[in-house]
Amino acid sequence: MREFEILEEFLDFAWLQIARGKADRKSPARCPTFITTNNDGYPRARTLVLRRSNRESDEIEFHTDKTSQKMLSLEKDSRAGIHFWLPKVQLQIQMDVNVKIKVGEVTAPIWRNVPKSSRVSYGTIPTPGTIIKKPFDYEQNPAQNRFAILTCNIQIIELLHLGDKHVRARFMKSQKWNGLWLAP
Amino acid sequence: MREFEILEEFLDFAWLQIARGKADRKSPARCPTFITTNNDGYPRARTLVLRRSNRESDEIEFHTDKTSQKMLSLEKDSRAGIHFWLPKVQLQIQMDVNVKIKVGEVTAPIWRNVPKSSRVSYGTIPTPGTIIKKPFDYEQNPAQNRFAILTCNIQIIELLHLGDKHVRARFMKSQKWNGLWLAP
Repeated sequence: MREFEILEEFLDFAWLQIARGKADRKSPARCPTFITTNNDGYPRARTLVLRRSNRESDEIEFHTDKTSQKMLSLEKDSRAGIHFWLPKVQLQIQMDVNVKIKVGEVTAPIWRNVPKSSRVSYGTIPTPGTIIKKPFDYEQNPAQNRFAILTCNIQIIELLHLGDKHVRARFMKSQKWNGLWLAP
Repeated sequence: MREFEILEEFLDFAWLQIARGKADRKSPARCPTFITTNNDGYPRARTLVLRRSNRESDEIEFHTDKTSQKMLSLEKDSRAGIHFWLPKVQLQIQMDVNVKIKVGEVTAPIWRNVPKSSRVSYGTIPTPGTIIKKPFDYEQNPAQNRFAILTCNIQIIELLHLGDKHVRARFMKSQKWNGLWLAP
Protein backbone atom coordinates (compact mmCIF):
# COMPACT_ATOMS: atom_id res chain seq x y z
CA MET A 1 0.00 0.00 0.00
CA ARG A 2 1.28 3.42 -0.97
CA GLU A 3 2.23 5.96 1.69
CA PHE A 4 2.14 9.74 1.32
CA GLU A 5 4.53 12.09 3.03
CA ILE A 6 4.62 14.95 0.53
CA LEU A 7 1.52 17.11 0.12
CA GLU A 8 2.00 17.74 -3.58
CA GLU A 9 2.35 14.03 -4.35
CA PHE A 10 -0.81 13.32 -2.41
CA LEU A 11 -2.78 15.83 -4.47
CA ASP A 12 -1.19 14.56 -7.72
CA PHE A 13 -2.30 11.04 -6.83
CA ALA A 14 -5.90 12.19 -6.30
CA TRP A 15 -6.02 14.01 -9.65
CA LEU A 16 -4.55 10.94 -11.35
CA GLN A 17 -7.46 8.89 -9.98
CA ILE A 18 -9.97 11.48 -11.20
CA ALA A 19 -8.40 11.43 -14.69
CA ARG A 20 -8.71 7.64 -14.71
CA GLY A 21 -12.38 8.02 -13.88
CA LYS A 22 -12.81 9.77 -17.19
CA ALA A 23 -10.71 7.27 -19.19
CA ASP A 24 -11.77 3.98 -17.58
CA ARG A 25 -15.48 3.19 -17.70
CA LYS A 26 -15.09 0.71 -14.85
CA SER A 27 -13.33 3.04 -12.42
CA PRO A 28 -15.48 4.14 -9.46
CA ALA A 29 -14.03 7.62 -10.05
CA ARG A 30 -16.27 7.71 -13.12
CA CYS A 31 -19.34 7.88 -10.90
CA PRO A 32 -18.81 10.31 -8.03
CA THR A 33 -21.54 11.54 -5.73
CA PHE A 34 -22.81 15.07 -6.25
CA ILE A 35 -24.30 16.76 -3.20
CA THR A 36 -26.61 19.74 -2.90
CA THR A 37 -28.87 21.15 -0.21
CA ASN A 38 -32.51 20.41 -1.00
CA ASN A 39 -35.03 23.21 -0.73
CA ASP A 40 -36.56 21.40 2.27
CA GLY A 41 -33.22 21.76 4.08
CA TYR A 42 -32.03 18.17 3.85
CA PRO A 43 -28.72 17.58 2.07
CA ARG A 44 -29.22 15.30 -0.93
CA ALA A 45 -26.68 13.15 -2.79
CA ARG A 46 -26.89 11.33 -6.11
CA THR A 47 -24.47 9.41 -8.31
CA LEU A 48 -23.55 11.26 -11.51
CA VAL A 49 -21.27 10.43 -14.39
CA LEU A 50 -18.10 12.53 -14.44
CA ARG A 51 -18.17 14.24 -17.85
CA ARG A 52 -15.05 16.41 -17.71
CA SER A 53 -12.30 17.27 -15.27
CA ASN A 54 -9.65 19.95 -15.61
CA ARG A 55 -7.04 20.47 -12.96
CA GLU A 56 -5.70 23.65 -14.59
CA SER A 57 -9.07 25.41 -14.37
CA ASP A 58 -10.13 23.65 -11.12
CA GLU A 59 -13.23 22.25 -12.78
CA ILE A 60 -15.35 19.11 -12.71
CA GLU A 61 -18.32 18.87 -15.06
CA PHE A 62 -21.61 16.95 -14.96
CA HIS A 63 -24.62 16.87 -17.26
CA THR A 64 -28.23 16.90 -16.09
CA ASP A 65 -31.83 17.48 -17.12
CA LYS A 66 -32.67 21.18 -16.77
CA THR A 67 -35.90 20.32 -14.94
CA SER A 68 -34.35 17.96 -12.36
CA GLN A 69 -34.70 18.68 -8.66
CA LYS A 70 -30.97 19.28 -8.22
CA MET A 71 -31.35 22.27 -10.58
CA LEU A 72 -33.97 23.83 -8.30
CA SER A 73 -31.60 23.31 -5.37
CA LEU A 74 -28.66 24.85 -7.24
CA GLU A 75 -30.65 27.88 -8.36
CA LYS A 76 -31.28 28.63 -4.68
CA ASP A 77 -27.79 27.75 -3.45
CA SER A 78 -24.92 27.15 -5.85
CA ARG A 79 -22.69 25.66 -3.13
CA ALA A 80 -22.34 21.93 -3.65
CA GLY A 81 -20.09 19.00 -2.80
CA ILE A 82 -18.45 16.17 -4.71
CA HIS A 83 -17.40 12.90 -3.08
CA PHE A 84 -15.32 10.01 -4.42
CA TRP A 85 -14.61 6.78 -2.57
CA LEU A 86 -12.05 4.63 -4.37
CA PRO A 87 -11.89 1.29 -2.54
CA LYS A 88 -8.96 -0.23 -4.43
CA VAL A 89 -6.61 2.61 -3.52
CA GLN A 90 -8.45 3.32 -0.23
CA LEU A 91 -8.74 7.00 -1.06
CA GLN A 92 -11.58 9.39 -0.26
CA ILE A 93 -11.77 12.70 -2.14
CA GLN A 94 -14.12 15.41 -0.88
CA MET A 95 -14.63 18.72 -2.66
CA ASP A 96 -16.46 21.95 -1.88
CA VAL A 97 -17.53 23.46 -5.22
CA ASN A 98 -19.43 26.44 -6.59
CA VAL A 99 -21.64 25.45 -9.50
CA LYS A 100 -22.26 27.44 -12.65
CA ILE A 101 -25.20 26.23 -14.74
CA LYS A 102 -25.08 26.37 -18.54
CA VAL A 103 -28.26 25.88 -20.57
CA GLY A 104 -29.46 26.88 -24.04
CA GLU A 105 -27.39 27.75 -27.10
CA VAL A 106 -24.07 27.68 -25.24
CA THR A 107 -24.49 23.93 -24.65
CA ALA A 108 -24.94 23.12 -28.38
CA PRO A 109 -21.32 22.08 -29.09
CA ILE A 110 -21.36 19.66 -26.15
CA TRP A 111 -24.86 18.35 -26.97
CA ARG A 112 -23.69 17.42 -30.46
CA ASN A 113 -21.19 15.01 -28.87
CA VAL A 114 -23.64 13.37 -26.48
CA PRO A 115 -24.28 9.86 -27.87
CA LYS A 116 -27.87 9.09 -28.85
CA SER A 117 -28.07 6.40 -26.16
CA SER A 118 -27.22 9.00 -23.50
CA ARG A 119 -29.54 11.71 -24.79
CA VAL A 120 -32.59 9.88 -23.45
CA SER A 121 -31.63 11.19 -20.00
CA TYR A 122 -32.48 14.74 -21.03
CA GLY A 123 -36.12 15.35 -21.82
CA THR A 124 -38.28 12.86 -19.89
CA ILE A 125 -42.00 13.69 -20.05
CA PRO A 126 -43.36 14.38 -17.46
CA THR A 127 -40.31 16.08 -15.91
CA PRO A 128 -38.12 14.08 -13.48
CA GLY A 129 -39.66 13.70 -10.02
CA THR A 130 -43.27 14.15 -11.18
CA ILE A 131 -45.67 11.66 -9.54
CA ILE A 132 -46.94 9.10 -12.07
CA LYS A 133 -49.55 6.34 -11.74
CA LYS A 134 -47.52 3.42 -13.04
CA PRO A 135 -43.72 2.97 -13.13
CA PHE A 136 -43.47 3.32 -16.92
CA ASP A 137 -45.93 6.20 -17.37
CA TYR A 138 -43.28 8.41 -18.93
CA GLU A 139 -41.72 9.06 -22.30
CA GLN A 140 -38.18 9.87 -23.26
CA ASN A 141 -38.06 12.78 -25.62
CA PRO A 142 -34.42 13.90 -25.93
CA ALA A 143 -34.18 17.67 -26.37
CA GLN A 144 -31.27 20.05 -26.27
CA ASN A 145 -33.43 22.63 -24.51
CA ARG A 146 -33.64 20.22 -21.57
CA PHE A 147 -29.86 19.69 -21.42
CA ALA A 148 -27.81 21.45 -18.73
CA ILE A 149 -24.09 21.49 -17.98
CA LEU A 150 -23.03 21.85 -14.36
CA THR A 151 -19.55 23.36 -14.19
CA CYS A 152 -18.22 22.87 -10.67
CA ASN A 153 -15.48 25.28 -9.66
CA ILE A 154 -13.46 23.54 -6.96
CA GLN A 155 -12.72 25.60 -3.82
CA ILE A 156 -11.47 22.96 -1.39
CA ILE A 157 -10.16 19.40 -1.82
CA GLU A 158 -9.85 17.16 1.21
CA LEU A 159 -8.13 13.78 0.94
CA LEU A 160 -8.15 10.81 3.27
CA HIS A 161 -5.98 7.80 2.55
CA LEU A 162 -6.53 4.66 4.59
CA GLY A 163 -3.10 3.10 4.21
CA ASP A 164 -1.25 1.26 6.96
CA LYS A 165 -1.45 4.61 8.68
CA HIS A 166 -4.27 7.02 7.91
CA VAL A 167 -3.26 10.23 6.15
CA ARG A 168 -5.45 13.30 5.68
CA ALA A 169 -4.86 16.66 4.03
CA ARG A 170 -6.74 19.77 2.93
CA PHE A 171 -5.97 21.86 -0.14
CA MET A 172 -7.60 25.24 -0.80
CA LYS A 173 -7.83 27.22 -4.01
CA SER A 174 -7.53 30.42 -1.95
CA GLN A 175 -4.11 29.13 -0.80
CA LYS A 176 -3.06 28.32 -4.37
CA TRP A 177 -3.56 24.62 -3.57
CA ASN A 178 -0.76 24.52 -1.03
CA GLY A 179 -1.93 21.85 1.35
CA LEU A 180 -2.12 21.23 5.07
CA TRP A 181 -1.86 17.92 6.87
CA LEU A 182 -4.77 17.17 9.18
CA ALA A 183 -5.16 14.66 11.99
CA PRO A 184 -7.29 11.87 10.49
CA MET B 1 -32.03 -7.43 -15.31
CA ARG B 2 -34.85 -7.29 -12.80
CA GLU B 3 -37.85 -5.07 -13.41
CA PHE B 4 -40.09 -3.53 -10.75
CA GLU B 5 -43.78 -2.89 -11.19
CA ILE B 6 -44.99 -3.22 -7.60
CA LEU B 7 -44.00 -0.53 -5.12
CA GLU B 8 -43.73 -2.85 -2.13
CA GLU B 9 -41.42 -5.25 -3.98
CA PHE B 10 -39.21 -2.35 -5.00
CA LEU B 11 -38.81 -1.24 -1.37
CA ASP B 12 -38.27 -4.86 -0.22
CA PHE B 13 -35.47 -5.19 -2.76
CA ALA B 14 -33.75 -2.06 -1.45
CA TRP B 15 -33.91 -3.25 2.17
CA LEU B 16 -32.55 -6.63 1.10
CA GLN B 17 -29.52 -4.86 -0.38
CA ILE B 18 -29.02 -2.86 2.81
CA ALA B 19 -29.18 -6.04 4.90
CA ARG B 20 -26.54 -7.58 2.62
CA GLY B 21 -24.34 -4.55 3.27
CA LYS B 22 -24.26 -5.55 6.90
CA ALA B 23 -23.64 -9.27 6.23
CA ASP B 24 -21.24 -9.10 3.29
CA ARG B 25 -18.01 -7.18 3.90
CA LYS B 26 -17.49 -6.77 0.17
CA SER B 27 -20.90 -5.31 -0.65
CA PRO B 28 -20.84 -1.60 -1.55
CA ALA B 29 -23.93 -1.30 0.66
CA ARG B 30 -21.54 -1.76 3.56
CA CYS B 31 -20.04 1.65 2.89
CA PRO B 32 -22.76 4.22 2.16
CA THR B 33 -22.19 7.94 2.00
CA PHE B 34 -23.37 10.04 4.92
CA ILE B 35 -24.21 13.66 4.14
CA THR B 36 -24.51 16.67 6.41
CA THR B 37 -24.51 20.42 5.93
CA ASN B 38 -21.21 21.90 7.05
CA ASN B 39 -21.25 24.95 9.28
CA ASP B 40 -19.81 26.97 6.38
CA GLY B 41 -22.95 26.14 4.35
CA TYR B 42 -21.45 23.59 1.96
CA PRO B 43 -22.98 20.12 1.99
CA ARG B 44 -20.34 17.53 2.92
CA ALA B 45 -20.31 13.78 2.24
CA ARG B 46 -18.09 11.02 3.60
CA THR B 47 -18.01 7.23 3.35
CA LEU B 48 -18.99 5.50 6.59
CA VAL B 49 -19.32 1.87 7.56
CA LEU B 50 -22.93 0.78 8.06
CA ARG B 51 -23.04 -0.53 11.64
CA ARG B 52 -26.71 -1.43 12.02
CA SER B 53 -29.92 -1.26 10.03
CA ASN B 54 -33.43 -1.96 11.23
CA ARG B 55 -36.37 -1.73 8.91
CA GLU B 56 -38.92 -2.13 11.72
CA SER B 57 -37.66 0.94 13.57
CA ASP B 58 -36.66 2.84 10.38
CA GLU B 59 -33.08 3.13 11.57
CA ILE B 60 -29.58 3.11 10.15
CA GLU B 61 -26.63 3.43 12.52
CA PHE B 62 -23.08 4.71 12.16
CA HIS B 63 -20.22 5.15 14.62
CA THR B 64 -17.95 8.19 14.74
CA ASP B 65 -15.44 10.10 16.84
CA LYS B 66 -17.28 12.52 19.11
CA THR B 67 -14.91 15.32 18.12
CA SER B 68 -15.22 14.87 14.34
CA GLN B 69 -16.44 17.73 12.17
CA LYS B 70 -19.64 15.92 11.21
CA MET B 71 -20.62 16.03 14.90
CA LEU B 72 -20.32 19.83 14.91
CA SER B 73 -22.53 19.93 11.80
CA LEU B 74 -25.11 17.59 13.34
CA GLU B 75 -25.28 19.55 16.58
CA LYS B 76 -26.31 22.58 14.52
CA ASP B 77 -28.62 20.72 12.12
CA SER B 78 -29.67 17.12 12.73
CA ARG B 79 -31.07 16.70 9.20
CA ALA B 80 -28.79 14.48 7.16
CA GLY B 81 -28.78 12.24 4.10
CA ILE B 82 -27.64 8.72 3.28
CA HIS B 83 -26.75 7.59 -0.22
CA PHE B 84 -26.06 4.12 -1.61
CA TRP B 85 -25.02 3.36 -5.18
CA LEU B 86 -25.01 -0.39 -5.91
CA PRO B 87 -23.50 -0.85 -9.37
CA LYS B 88 -24.14 -4.59 -9.73
CA VAL B 89 -27.89 -4.24 -9.28
CA GLN B 90 -27.92 -0.69 -10.74
CA LEU B 91 -29.80 0.65 -7.75
CA GLN B 92 -29.51 4.05 -6.07
CA ILE B 93 -30.96 4.50 -2.59
CA GLN B 94 -31.34 8.01 -1.17
CA MET B 95 -32.57 8.75 2.34
CA ASP B 96 -33.53 11.85 4.28
CA VAL B 97 -32.82 11.14 7.94
CA ASN B 98 -32.96 12.85 11.34
CA VAL B 99 -29.94 12.00 13.45
CA LYS B 100 -29.90 11.33 17.16
CA ILE B 101 -26.42 11.34 18.75
CA LYS B 102 -25.57 8.97 21.58
CA VAL B 103 -22.42 9.49 23.65
CA GLY B 104 -21.25 8.54 27.15
CA GLU B 105 -22.44 5.70 29.34
CA VAL B 106 -25.31 4.72 27.04
CA THR B 107 -22.78 3.65 24.38
CA ALA B 108 -20.93 1.25 26.71
CA PRO B 109 -22.68 -1.98 25.61
CA ILE B 110 -21.92 -1.19 21.95
CA TRP B 111 -18.35 -0.09 22.70
CA ARG B 112 -17.63 -3.42 24.35
CA ASN B 113 -18.36 -5.12 21.01
CA VAL B 114 -16.19 -2.81 18.90
CA PRO B 115 -13.11 -4.86 17.90
CA LYS B 116 -9.77 -3.55 19.10
CA SER B 117 -8.65 -2.96 15.51
CA SER B 118 -11.65 -0.65 14.96
CA ARG B 119 -11.34 1.24 18.23
CA VAL B 120 -8.34 3.17 16.94
CA SER B 121 -10.79 5.32 14.97
CA TYR B 122 -12.16 6.83 18.17
CA GLY B 123 -9.71 8.92 20.11
CA THR B 124 -7.09 10.35 17.74
CA ILE B 125 -4.90 13.00 19.40
CA PRO B 126 -5.07 15.78 18.31
CA THR B 127 -8.76 15.60 17.38
CA PRO B 128 -9.72 14.81 13.76
CA GLY B 129 -9.31 17.77 11.41
CA THR B 130 -6.68 19.54 13.53
CA ILE B 131 -3.82 20.96 11.42
CA ILE B 132 -0.58 19.03 12.03
CA LYS B 133 2.97 19.63 10.78
CA LYS B 134 3.71 16.19 9.35
CA PRO B 135 1.29 13.53 8.11
CA PHE B 136 1.93 11.16 11.02
CA ASP B 137 1.99 13.75 13.83
CA TYR B 138 -0.90 12.11 15.62
CA GLU B 139 -1.54 9.32 18.05
CA GLN B 140 -4.36 6.83 18.32
CA ASN B 141 -5.64 6.61 21.83
CA PRO B 142 -8.89 4.60 21.76
CA ALA B 143 -11.33 5.90 24.36
CA GLN B 144 -14.97 5.19 24.99
CA ASN B 145 -15.54 8.83 25.90
CA ARG B 146 -14.65 9.72 22.30
CA PHE B 147 -17.09 7.16 20.83
CA ALA B 148 -20.42 8.34 19.39
CA ILE B 149 -23.34 6.45 17.85
CA LEU B 150 -25.32 8.21 15.14
CA THR B 151 -28.84 6.78 15.00
CA CYS B 152 -30.43 7.91 11.77
CA ASN B 153 -34.23 7.90 11.78
CA ILE B 154 -35.32 7.51 8.17
CA GLN B 155 -38.02 9.92 6.95
CA ILE B 156 -37.89 9.45 3.18
CA ILE B 157 -36.46 6.73 0.92
CA GLU B 158 -36.09 7.40 -2.77
CA LEU B 159 -35.11 4.59 -5.15
CA LEU B 160 -33.84 4.72 -8.72
CA HIS B 161 -33.31 1.50 -10.65
CA LEU B 162 -31.47 1.70 -13.95
CA GLY B 163 -32.87 -1.43 -15.60
CA ASP B 164 -33.78 -1.70 -19.26
CA LYS B 165 -36.24 1.02 -18.36
CA HIS B 166 -35.52 3.41 -15.53
CA VAL B 167 -37.81 3.14 -12.52
CA ARG B 168 -38.03 5.63 -9.66
CA ALA B 169 -40.15 5.77 -6.53
CA ARG B 170 -40.47 7.68 -3.27
CA PHE B 171 -41.52 6.23 0.09
CA MET B 172 -42.31 8.39 3.12
CA LYS B 173 -42.54 7.45 6.77
CA SER B 174 -45.36 9.99 7.16
CA GLN B 175 -47.31 7.94 4.59
CA LYS B 176 -46.58 4.68 6.41
CA TRP B 177 -44.08 3.82 3.69
CA ASN B 178 -46.74 3.55 0.99
CA GLY B 179 -44.85 4.58 -2.12
CA LEU B 180 -45.32 6.76 -5.18
CA TRP B 181 -43.89 6.19 -8.63
CA LEU B 182 -41.94 9.14 -9.99
CA ALA B 183 -40.84 10.00 -13.51
CA PRO B 184 -37.12 9.15 -13.58
